[in-house]
Amino acid sequence: MISVYVHSNGETRCVERIDSAWLAPSSQVVLWVDLVEPTRDEIQQVLVDTFRFHPLSVEDAASEIQFPKIEAYQQYLYLILHGIDFQEEEHRFATRDVDFFLGRNHLVTVHDGRSRSIARLRELCSQHPHILSEGPVALLHRIVDSMVDNYRPEIEELEERIDQMEQEAVLGSGRDIVRQILDLKRDLSSLRRVVIPQRDVIGRLARREFPLITDEMAYRFRDVYDHLVRLADESITFQDRVTGILDAHLSNVSNRLNQIMKVLTVASTIFLPLTVLTGMYGMNVPLPHFPGSDATQFWWIFGIMIAIAAAMLAIFRSKGWI
Amino acid sequence: MISVYVHSNGETRCVERIDSAWLAPSSQVVLWVDLVEPTRDEIQQVLVDTFRFHPLSVEDAASEIQFPKIEAYQQYLYLILHGIDFQEEEHRFATRDVDFFLGRNHLVTVHDGRSRSIARLRELCSQHPHILSEGPVALLHRIVDSMVDNYRPEIEELEERIDQMEQEAVLGSGRDIVRQILDLKRDLSSLRRVVIPQRDVIGRLARREFPLITDEMAYRFRDVYDHLVRLADESITFQDRVTGILDAHLSNVSNRLNQIMKVLTVASTIFLPLTVLTGMYGMNVPLPHFPGSDATQFWWIFGIMIAIAAAMLAIFRSKGWI
Amino acid sequence: MISVYVHSNGETRCVERIDSAWLAPSSQVVLWVDLVEPTRDEIQQVLVDTFRFHPLSVEDAASEIQFPKIEAYQQYLYLILHGIDFQEEEHRFATRDVDFFLGRNHLVTVHDGRSRSIARLRELCSQHPHILSEGPVALLHRIVDSMVDNYRPEIEELEERIDQMEQEAVLGSGRDIVRQILDLKRDLSSLRRVVIPQRDVIGRLARREFPLITDEMAYRFRDVYDHLVRLADESITFQDRVTGILDAHLSNVSNRLNQIMKVLTVASTIFLPLTVLTGMYGMNVPLPHFPGSDATQFWWIFGIMIAIAAAMLAIFRSKGWI
Amino acid sequence: MISVYVHSNGETRCVERIDSAWLAPSSQVVLWVDLVEPTRDEIQQVLVDTFRFHPLSVEDAASEIQFPKIEAYQQYLYLILHGIDFQEEEHRFATRDVDFFLGRNHLVTVHDGRSRSIARLRELCSQHPHILSEGPVALLHRIVDSMVDNYRPEIEELEERIDQMEQEAVLGSGRDIVRQILDLKRDLSSLRRVVIPQRDVIGRLARREFPLITDEMAYRFRDVYDHLVRLADESITFQDRVTGILDAHLSNVSNRLNQIMKVLTVASTIFLPLTVLTGMYGMNVPLPHFPGSDATQFWWIFGIMIAIAAAMLAIFRSKGWI
Amino acid sequence: MISVYVHSNGETRCVERIDSAWLAPSSQVVLWVDLVEPTRDEIQQVLVDTFRFHPLSVEDAASEIQFPKIEAYQQYLYLILHGIDFQEEEHRFATRDVDFFLGRNHLVTVHDGRSRSIARLRELCSQHPHILSEGPVALLHRIVDSMVDNYRPEIEELEERIDQMEQEAVLGSGRDIVRQILDLKRDLSSLRRVVIPQRDVIGRLARREFPLITDEMAYRFRDVYDHLVRLADESITFQDRVTGILDAHLSNVSNRLNQIMKVLTVASTIFLPLTVLTGMYGMNVPLPHFPGSDATQFWWIFGIMIAIAAAMLAIFRSKGWI
Repeated sequence: MISVYVHSNGETRCVERIDSAWLAPSSQVVLWVDLVEPTRDEIQQVLVDTFRFHPLSVEDAASEIQFPKIEAYQQYLYLILHGIDFQEEEHRFATRDVDFFLGRNHLVTVHDGRSRSIARLRELCSQHPHILSEGPVALLHRIVDSMVDNYRPEIEELEERIDQMEQEAVLGSGRDIVRQILDLKRDLSSLRRVVIPQRDVIGRLARREFPLITDEMAYRFRDVYDHLVRLADESITFQDRVTGILDAHLSNVSNRLNQIMKVLTVASTIFLPLTVLTGMYGMNVPLPHFPGSDATQFWWIFGIMIAIAAAMLAIFRSKGWI
Repeated sequence: MISVYVHSNGETRCVERIDSAWLAPSSQVVLWVDLVEPTRDEIQQVLVDTFRFHPLSVEDAASEIQFPKIEAYQQYLYLILHGIDFQEEEHRFATRDVDFFLGRNHLVTVHDGRSRSIARLRELCSQHPHILSEGPVALLHRIVDSMVDNYRPEIEELEERIDQMEQEAVLGSGRDIVRQILDLKRDLSSLRRVVIPQRDVIGRLARREFPLITDEMAYRFRDVYDHLVRLADESITFQDRVTGILDAHLSNVSNRLNQIMKVLTVASTIFLPLTVLTGMYGMNVPLPHFPGSDATQFWWIFGIMIAIAAAMLAIFRSKGWI
Repeated sequence: MISVYVHSNGETRCVERIDSAWLAPSSQVVLWVDLVEPTRDEIQQVLVDTFRFHPLSVEDAASEIQFPKIEAYQQYLYLILHGIDFQEEEHRFATRDVDFFLGRNHLVTVHDGRSRSIARLRELCSQHPHILSEGPVALLHRIVDSMVDNYRPEIEELEERIDQMEQEAVLGSGRDIVRQILDLKRDLSSLRRVVIPQRDVIGRLARREFPLITDEMAYRFRDVYDHLVRLADESITFQDRVTGILDAHLSNVSNRLNQIMKVLTVASTIFLPLTVLTGMYGMNVPLPHFPGSDATQFWWIFGIMIAIAAAMLAIFRSKGWI
Repeated sequence: MISVYVHSNGETRCVERIDSAWLAPSSQVVLWVDLVEPTRDEIQQVLVDTFRFHPLSVEDAASEIQFPKIEAYQQYLYLILHGIDFQEEEHRFATRDVDFFLGRNHLVTVHDGRSRSIARLRELCSQHPHILSEGPVALLHRIVDSMVDNYRPEIEELEERIDQMEQEAVLGSGRDIVRQILDLKRDLSSLRRVVIPQRDVIGRLARREFPLITDEMAYRFRDVYDHLVRLADESITFQDRVTGILDAHLSNVSNRLNQIMKVLTVASTIFLPLTVLTGMYGMNVPLPHFPGSDATQFWWIFGIMIAIAAAMLAIFRSKGWI
Repeated sequence: MISVYVHSNGETRCVERIDSAWLAPSSQVVLWVDLVEPTRDEIQQVLVDTFRFHPLSVEDAASEIQFPKIEAYQQYLYLILHGIDFQEEEHRFATRDVDFFLGRNHLVTVHDGRSRSIARLRELCSQHPHILSEGPVALLHRIVDSMVDNYRPEIEELEERIDQMEQEAVLGSGRDIVRQILDLKRDLSSLRRVVIPQRDVIGRLARREFPLITDEMAYRFRDVYDHLVRLADESITFQDRVTGILDAHLSNVSNRLNQIMKVLTVASTIFLPLTVLTGMYGMNVPLPHFPGSDATQFWWIFGIMIAIAAAMLAIFRSKGWI
């Protein structure tokens, strides 16, 4: 699906076809072409025939690319940026790529229709026709800014998951912690893989490497860049914390093993001597007689057993085991 | 709340309104405007209407930013720096951001009123009116220097916590060590996240990247920079030591498990054979008769039991287990 | 075996000998010489006598080199690149080196005949004679592009192995996991050792460091470079995940040890007191009499045993062990 | 305490006051001023009033600084370097800072009197008056060279401690190894924190960044720089080895646990069946009669017990446990 | 011992004294001076009096230096490179330093007589007198190339040791694995400490940083450089694999502990209930009578014992423990 927003003479229209006059070097119109899940034909017609973009960038736009990047061609900049994929299920962190072709007076966006940031801009363009008059770079900034803002709730959700796992690891609960850590690590790794190159792409816009970007727009991109720097920074801090959770978990498992073994050792070292004692008095040989009558023999033995158990317990208590 | 300190003709006054003449390019006054928890209106009035700062820096000043940074605008420098938050409870390491707008003849500070460094400078300005005459960069240096000095006691408190945990880890005490390590790691991570960018911000001032900073002021900022380099360095050393504490703790847990298992093994291997022996003499079958009378049978058996236990103990002693 | 593809006057021929006129500075032909497992004689004759390549690059071409690299000589570029070795058995990741000599109007390739990418290009050259007219750099790009594309299925196979091992590590199955991890680590290390220098080689082509590479060809190499950046990136992510698998495995082993020890401890602490009790009533001394007839004595004792066992189980249940 | 060594007209004198004529730009004397634990007054008088050093460097010289550094002021270089503190007790690695002000014709050193290198130079200056004639840079080099040489025995002592701990870790002895590793880690961390910035400071002298340093002196500082590079390198290698010691220790603890558990398991699995057997023949029920007389019954049972124990031992031997 | 090889007028002689005319700036001879374990006198006479090398480089040449380096003096290059020490015993990786002074028309080598590469070159010089005519840089290249080639068998021996230890770690054999890993780590650390600076030294020769090196010689040094890059790369890969071996070993130790504990737990939980059962029937109280005659009582009990053991085994089998 193709939507064409064209601004000329202070007026914005939404049309369906691109007038090639608009692309003339002297043209004063501002053009935003939004391709949603374009067919091969649409790509050929718009990107190749009309805009005459370089085949390599067109090919990248037609396929799904995992890696944000920026490429300067002679007449335009080609950017791949990643936005949060809110339709991903199972609470996993996932992103979708959006492609941008940024020219002197036009912005072409190619995506799969899931981008909330572009949806919002489309709405905005309908309501505030003057938005297009700021030029294609400002349009790009609006989309990118909103895409980066959308990372924030996802990051916070990740942080909550980490907080909760830290609690669980400290308390020793959390059966499934190994699986959760592996899941979290994969999510963090996806986050880093997207955020770090994205930060570098926006950094290049902010550093005015490209003549298309004016000083004013560079200030704005520096703001987005700062957000991405913080995201990248947080993703690394999270990584550290996840490692800490695993350490805490393993340390707890070891501690619990010690607890278990103490119980076993205490029980065994108390009852084994008693077993030997009772075994001795069960032997079919004449036994030494404790002082007193026959009836008191049992109580002598019982007393010795109690004494042995008490001595053992005292020893273990002095060791701090119980 | 807005406080305006203005120095002109060798005299410092504290007023409540900014005279726009003071901001004229040829103005000779030195101006310090301190905004404490400014309302939206105050921000609009002072930062936007009076000083005409760039909207992006005004927006950053109005919100809380986690990340120290410096940005050069055409007429001024915008800095976010972080000071210790002494009001944070629970012995956690926390910081608060302070925003600085540094112009040719003015310094504007925006903060939440908790900054001790600015409070001190305000006091100082009341008592020593000549301080403003040193210019806005010297004012900035005074605040920043005192902010960085305030890190020192916090660092020392962190070091003490680490020292104490090291002691506990070596002695094997410290039940809660896993939770403490997680806490300490988070604090160190907060410290690093603030100190390292702060160091880089001050480093740029010290390297004279900005024409506003004279050679003399650059020397002073290099001094602050050295402090921050040392803080960053210590935060990394601390990280290493915390890892060492966890290793020591786990090693102790393992050692203790070995101790426990030795006790269990020694007890089991001594008493299990004795149980078998007493069991044998408790069997309802005619038993071999030791030499001597019936009454001596028991003592024979008892002697064998003592011999078995002694042999076991000798074996374990030779293995170094007891 | 030597194959010579020569393009002149719009026509491509496959010949067996190189006409030295083709190598004259003013020559307009495009030449591709493909040496498959060349003998010492062929190397001497083609690379040394005909093309007069530098002895060091010829020596490298004649031997198998483990390390991708690019070297600029005065008249030509010498490249070693690595392609997937599909004939490697045992599901191991392995690569084979292909050598390229890229001159103004010629490309010489030296390999062991296993390269699928070159095989495909040879086929293509037979069917589409115009391919050679694009020049030697385009030929090089075609081969390299296809070599890098061939990494994709191998990477996916590696990813599948990691996914499966992660599953196994979480479920606690997978006996052989240590050996598999060592294998996987070696494969990833081989991958990284090939991909990272290869990325740097292609990066230098993409950055137009060499005058032989036109802007248009640099765009194309940048595309290949992006693929290699992603491969390198994935190989590092994989490394992380393998470390995570080992951690998960060790954590599972520890958890299982805890399970086992709990069973042992529960069994021992239930049955050892019972043994002592039965031992007591087996002693050859007059025993205290429970209320009731002789016949009820057993049931008293049995009741006490059940009570002891139930108490123990209740204690362990309250500890969450069973 | 202030000592002033002054060389003029081929003669060296040791005086107590500085003649301000010596500091004139055209002065030909060479001056070495050594301040040992200077009082506030001495600092003010010598560093500020006489030499007019920058307040920031004077302040640094008056306090103890943990971090080697070099700072270029307009008329002089200010260096903080660290020497071994031989008076530190408890075999800990510790350093003391020495401050240097290096001018065109003077060297000022500030320290606490513990520096052996400066003590040696003072002795040397008394015996060989020509030493001062080499100029202040050569004096600086002599002190620095000797300070760096003094690191060598400390490094060797550290290496010996590591060697010994490695032995102990392999042999499994060494009770206190966790504490020793923590101590060693702290010492290595102190070493690295001093050596690495010191290396960088001397490296800047060696790279002729400062016009005061002639080519000849730069050669000599390069030699010192090489020593520091090696020290830094060794400190990193030591770090690796300490990590290896901890791994070895933990691996030994695990191995010993396995040994202990094998003994326990072997003992339990041999004696528990025997206990059951003797228990069976102790039951108050008519028992099956082995062939032969009553007297042979015991020997039958005893034979079965021996057979069970032998079978168990054979199984464990086949498993490689004993 | 001093050997002097001198090439002039197409003829090579081996003499014992250096004619100072050969060192004149206009001299056309090529000179190779080989000092084997030189005495202090020889060093003074040759390096200082004849060649007038800088005292710092002479001092380095006279002592054993652990660290490869290159230093440019005004008239010559001074290099320290390390070759394999084949006389080292105990299969340890060790190197010996060789010193090179490379001038316009001379090469001076200083070593301890163990260098195989120099021995080979001496032989070569006797047989092929034209070798010297290639100039001193080519001589240096010949020695260095052969020194680096000699690393290859040592590297392969290290790889074999690693392969074998990997096997042992996977199979769980290898008692001494901790000591072997520590040994291997130290060897790898020695290797890295020599190879990485050596690589950088040769890299500087290859990058034509020094005017003495012609383009043609730089190509040759680039070849040596490539070898060293690969060696450095392999030494890092080896490091990774050794870490993997330790992980595998620890994982195996844990697995074995689990195996042992399973055996213990299975044995205990089977035999402890049986002990209680037999203990019950050994009690001196009237026991419940199973149906049937007295003679069948035993078989009833025996059946119950078998049933308990079978039930236990079934439970453990269902848990996958046996």
